[in-house]
Amino acid sequence: MAVYTEVPDGELAAFIAAYDIGDVVSCKGIAEGVENSNYILHTTGGSYILTLYEKRVHKEDLPFFLGLMEHLAEKGLNCPTPIKARDGVALRELCGRPAALISFLEGMWPRRPTEKHCQQVGVALADLHLKGADFPMQRPNNLSVEGWRLLVASTKDRADEVKPGLGQVITAELDHLAGNWPTGLARGVIHADLFPDNVFFIGERLSGLIDFYFACTDFLAYDLAICLNAWCFEAASGGRAGEFNVTKARLMIEGYRRLRPLSDDELAALPLLARGSALRFLLTRLYDWLNHPPGAFVQPKDPLEYLKKLTFHQQARSVAAYGL
Amino acid sequence: MAVYTEVPDGELAAFIAAYDIGDVVSCKGIAEGVENSNYILHTTGGSYILTLYEKRVHKEDLPFFLGLMEHLAEKGLNCPTPIKARDGVALRELCGRPAALISFLEGMWPRRPTEKHCQQVGVALADLHLKGADFPMQRPNNLSVEGWRLLVASTKDRADEVKPGLGQVITAELDHLAGNWPTGLARGVIHADLFPDNVFFIGERLSGLIDFYFACTDFLAYDLAICLNAWCFEAASGGRAGEFNVTKARLMIEGYRRLRPLSDDELAALPLLARGSALRFLLTRLYDWLNHPPGAFVQPKDPLEYLKKLTFHQQARSVAAYGL
Repeated sequence: MAVYTEVPDGELAAFIAAYDIGDVVSCKGIAEGVENSNYILHTTGGSYILTLYEKRVHKEDLPFFLGLMEHLAEKGLNCPTPIKARDGVALRELCGRPAALISFLEGMWPRRPTEKHCQQVGVALADLHLKGADFPMQRPNNLSVEGWRLLVASTKDRADEVKPGLGQVITAELDHLAGNWPTGLARGVIHADLFPDNVFFIGERLSGLIDFYFACTDFLAYDLAICLNAWCFEAASGGRAGEFNVTKARLMIEGYRRLRPLSDDELAALPLLARGSALRFLLTRLYDWLNHPPGAFVQPKDPLEYLKKLTFHQQARSVAAYGL
Repeated sequence: MAVYTEVPDGELAAFIAAYDIGDVVSCKGIAEGVENSNYILHTTGGSYILTLYEKRVHKEDLPFFLGLMEHLAEKGLNCPTPIKARDGVALRELCGRPAALISFLEGMWPRRPTEKHCQQVGVALADLHLKGADFPMQRPNNLSVEGWRLLVASTKDRADEVKPGLGQVITAELDHLAGNWPTGLARGVIHADLFPDNVFFIGERLSGLIDFYFACTDFLAYDLAICLNAWCFEAASGGRAGEFNVTKARLMIEGYRRLRPLSDDELAALPLLARGSALRFLLTRLYDWLNHPPGAFVQPKDPLEYLKKLTFHQQARSVAAYGL
């Protein structure tokens, strides 16, 4: 939960005056999102999200993120789209920060993902990949192998504070992945962070995807591997805590394949991609765990949840482990 | 900024099904309010505020607060009003907490109060007092003299950690106020916390009052004294930092008197009531400052801002100090 930048009413009114969206009637900071400051803005014209980009987002990446949302929305994907001011520019400045006004996407993210949710996420992910295929911009994935190397280097000496032996596990896993990471798989725009809190549903129907601020250019099947990790393990508490739900995985992959067939190479690589994805979230969570300032707003997430997921994928011999 | 209770989508849908307000289309936690968890809820029928009452609000006070909002809104005051479910009940339960759905009030609170704002606040406060006159319920003000006595007792020994001599100042001030506190002034429902963040404006027009969770039965003129403290001193930073703005005070009092005349006794008591109000916020801020857990979400407010305000009122010989 976070609003890092307080927007005074006067500055807001001046900012909104550049748009053709009516007058401000309310603006309230949202307690969601850990990277940026987000507000729900109601104007006489409708509801919007106002985002101020804080320092963890690189300003030079914003044209990619905003351009991608606009591209996908124009192609009919249900996702927020940047609103342009009267001068045609969407990326502006407010309170000394880059800022953009984004269309409001209705829906709620599912706190307890079901099989139906997972199936629809698979379909929506393939839809995103197909609609992103002709997006002309590129952005390297700085959280792939080279990024993991940096994260391992900066966490391995203290990793055992979190769990004895963890430093050795991440070092060995990095070596394995670096030596075996695929090269020839289909590439394109991926979301790279399609966790449940970034997928909205109205009732049981998927209503859209949000938060494209990790989007980049990488293997399409790696995006599916991220979703398998994010959606198909049971919650950390409960009767089947942390178990892999093979039915959800099968439905997700089948949903994906309904729109975009997976090649034999992609299917064969899935266990390895899932290991890489598990290591990626293990490492960023581990880094945040070791480095979060005491008293920070944001409670860091448990890195060990992803150690368990990594262990599962290490034991997967083939895509059969995912229900196919 | 605070959302203490996370509301799962399933629980929310079941909760909303009891109302005639359409289906949920989105629900986002608001990073405002320090006592309760607040959400902006969009349904197919409109926008609402969903409030879950956390432990600092006493459950037995909720019928007073909700009843008052309903009473005032029915009389035409612009303020949020509780929405009743189909069974006629507004105060319900969600996620194990008392919860209510409240109408959405448009507007923004002014970050830099102007003379125009102050004048309208005076008018709106008198309007609230007149419309609250026949509200049948009573709630004692537990943050008046007896409440201050408890707060002084629990802070005076450590007050000098904040500023040397502060323990002596609050003890002496309490003695003075306890010995001279008025008894015969007009009483009724007061808001008791009408700070700028609880008054909404659309453009320069006051659009409504919110947050009745300190409302109680006390001297009406004491409510005006609270507003003088909350609105008529310049901001803590800037060229005239902390100075009393006598023009704002005069406009506020004149605005008030336009709807509800102040008796000679009320006018004569104003400096003393303003001292009491300054002590009240000095003490609660001092208590929070000395007792807030490290790493808490909410940064405590500076108690010394209210020491300066108290000093101003101690030197006021009559209502002339407030521009009359």
